[in-house]
Amino acid sequence: MKRILCLLLLLAGLAAGAQEMNSLQFRARVVSPELSQDAVTFRFAAPKARIVSVSASWMGYRSEPMKQGPDGIWTWTAPLPEPELYTYTFQVDGVTVLDPANVFVVRDGARYMNAVLIPGGYADAYAQSAAPGNLEQVWYHSAENDMVRRLYVYTPACYDRNDKKTKYPVLYLLHGGGGDEDAWATLGRTCQILDNLIAQGKAKPMFVVMPNGNPNQYAAQTLGIPVKTDIRQYASGFDNYSSLTADIVPFIEKTYPVIKNRKGRAVAGLSMGGGQSFFIAFRNVDLFSSVGIFSSGLIGANAIGGAPFDGEAIIPGLYSQPAKFNRFDVIYLSCGEEDNRIDGMKDFKAKLDGKGYKGVVWEQYPGGHEWKVWRRNLASFVQLLFK
Amino acid sequence: MKRILCLLLLLAGLAAGAQEMNSLQFRARVVSPELSQDAVTFRFAAPKARIVSVSASWMGYRSEPMKQGPDGIWTWTAPLPEPELYTYTFQVDGVTVLDPANVFVVRDGARYMNAVLIPGGYADAYAQSAAPGNLEQVWYHSAENDMVRRLYVYTPACYDRNDKKTKYPVLYLLHGGGGDEDAWATLGRTCQILDNLIAQGKAKPMFVVMPNGNPNQYAAQTLGIPVKTDIRQYASGFDNYSSLTADIVPFIEKTYPVIKNRKGRAVAGLSMGGGQSFFIAFRNVDLFSSVGIFSSGLIGANAIGGAPFDGEAIIPGLYSQPAKFNRFDVIYLSCGEEDNRIDGMKDFKAKLDGKGYKGVVWEQYPGGHEWKVWRRNLASFVQLLFK
Repeated sequence: MKRILCLLLLLAGLAAGAQEMNSLQFRARVVSPELSQDAVTFRFAAPKARIVSVSASWMGYRSEPMKQGPDGIWTWTAPLPEPELYTYTFQVDGVTVLDPANVFVVRDGARYMNAVLIPGGYADAYAQSAAPGNLEQVWYHSAENDMVRRLYVYTPACYDRNDKKTKYPVLYLLHGGGGDEDAWATLGRTCQILDNLIAQGKAKPMFVVMPNGNPNQYAAQTLGIPVKTDIRQYASGFDNYSSLTADIVPFIEKTYPVIKNRKGRAVAGLSMGGGQSFFIAFRNVDLFSSVGIFSSGLIGANAIGGAPFDGEAIIPGLYSQPAKFNRFDVIYLSCGEEDNRIDGMKDFKAKLDGKGYKGVVWEQYPGGHEWKVWRRNLASFVQLLFK
Repeated sequence: MKRILCLLLLLAGLAAGAQEMNSLQFRARVVSPELSQDAVTFRFAAPKARIVSVSASWMGYRSEPMKQGPDGIWTWTAPLPEPELYTYTFQVDGVTVLDPANVFVVRDGARYMNAVLIPGGYADAYAQSAAPGNLEQVWYHSAENDMVRRLYVYTPACYDRNDKKTKYPVLYLLHGGGGDEDAWATLGRTCQILDNLIAQGKAKPMFVVMPNGNPNQYAAQTLGIPVKTDIRQYASGFDNYSSLTADIVPFIEKTYPVIKNRKGRAVAGLSMGGGQSFFIAFRNVDLFSSVGIFSSGLIGANAIGGAPFDGEAIIPGLYSQPAKFNRFDVIYLSCGEEDNRIDGMKDFKAKLDGKGYKGVVWEQYPGGHEWKVWRRNLASFVQLLFK
């Protein structure tokens, strides 16, 4: 019996290999995900599987068992969650599997997941604009890292490379510890958010530069370029991303028609990138006029097992000489309400207020340490910039 | 018993969901693929799976059973194949799965696969260059398709957007029926191939424009933009890609510092894109000076169930008035030796020779209807261009 089962499964495996050549046809047979007015249905063809579940971001990736029909297709239907961009995967007999019926796939660091966009409401900010800006994958030489590295540049739809007169402000936008230069463009929907806000007149046309804040990575690893050391050694920490001011800002200002003073420069980032943004901005008040710190583990360190955040110690004068630093147009601070970094972030906000800092903005959103919070942070922050 | 099994598997599923949050750590535990001097080893952690196999492109995607160790990790070791870029997936109990230990993933149409680069020999053409050119994801308005569409532009490392004097030739490079504007840049290694050949002085610095030849697709579907109709309706056929000359060439020549005459324009493509290139070049002898036709199903139609290729009927005068068309610097024709389109392609080559066409180049490579052939086609073709 066991031998027959194994033989059947081997044949199924062979068939799967052959079917791959016809995946376009195969896709059409199973529709997943399917959105109706009030429900979302996932489907997955796995006739030989014993147990299949789906885990989706709006349920905190909790596994929900799927039900197998007589056609071998597993199904799970849930009430439609609120409009947002969600990620999900299937688990087949304990193994994580992508939905072969859904070509919309995103990567978060080393991990691939399917995505589904529930339209309407706030998620319309993520929709494709009628006038999209471009995204450039750009190589530059980093003297700080002694390597050729890659960054992404978003250019707004109005940018015309033959126009030598118009100069644009630049937002330098930093990813978290597990990400790379691709994260903000895909999971962050940066292009779509900027496209829509610029088209609506709610944000100034700007360039957004998305570098790779993990010094051991040559570039987005999907190119097959080996990382310099083990991928887990991403801990550039928050402190040593000096490449941004040493390499990247000069490169961008030499290459693109951008404004070359502090009024035309802002820096923001999420998690590790939020900590990096804190250092970069407060160490370079003469270079940046606005800073966005999203869900920083540096500032909210206490709750996640790190050393308590002592702003005065790491930026001498931060609290004792506020006049030295109180030149920012915007100090945007935000955290997810279920993210345990929130208390540290709120405490920082209170300290800045107590020292009379101007331009401090606090926002909190439902959610944990996750992209649905950071996409809203980006959308809010860019509307405040370069006024 | 069955209930206990299901419970265990459900718990494994829950654990898998939780583990995803730590995929960076998880990755380090299982190394896959691992290359040694003479072997490649794939590993996959699936303690609960009954049968796991691997299918790799160098074995024609034939499923090879993996062997489970006492730690629950399945392993398969094979002699190292010749240097090349290969793709593979795992099959777990009949379901296709990506290798979670390998972040190098490519997409072919609707299908995701892992990739592995066996270095050395010819595959060094695919390696990362010390001076990489950039890749731009660019939106343009297509009047022909009545939509805003996306294309990719490769710009060589020497391109300086502040230099208004240097003008570059352009290769328009078309994907196959299942692909989109992403295919040549990822599976085709276009950037790496051009970077290396340009750095070695073997190819002229040029721009490479990679549009989307499937009119029903708005853009690479990984953006979550819906396709206009069912994805299977890719059959723009070979005949109606008029958007290239109507929309794309004018857009590129308005936007980039490129040579605006036939000597600075070439067109090439694989499979469906090869058929499109045939029509575009022979219908526009005044616009293009060179053409590359890789593994065309139009020209090799007979063997794949299509109507026999009648060049004279579809391009009147092709054989009867060769002087009208014999203005090309290069007519590059190629096919994989195990691709059944090869006889039709060879027959076309013989017919052109028989009519006295100049600049006809024939190459054949080991392989079927697959990327390892097309990557070599690209590398050969670009070395012949713009001389």
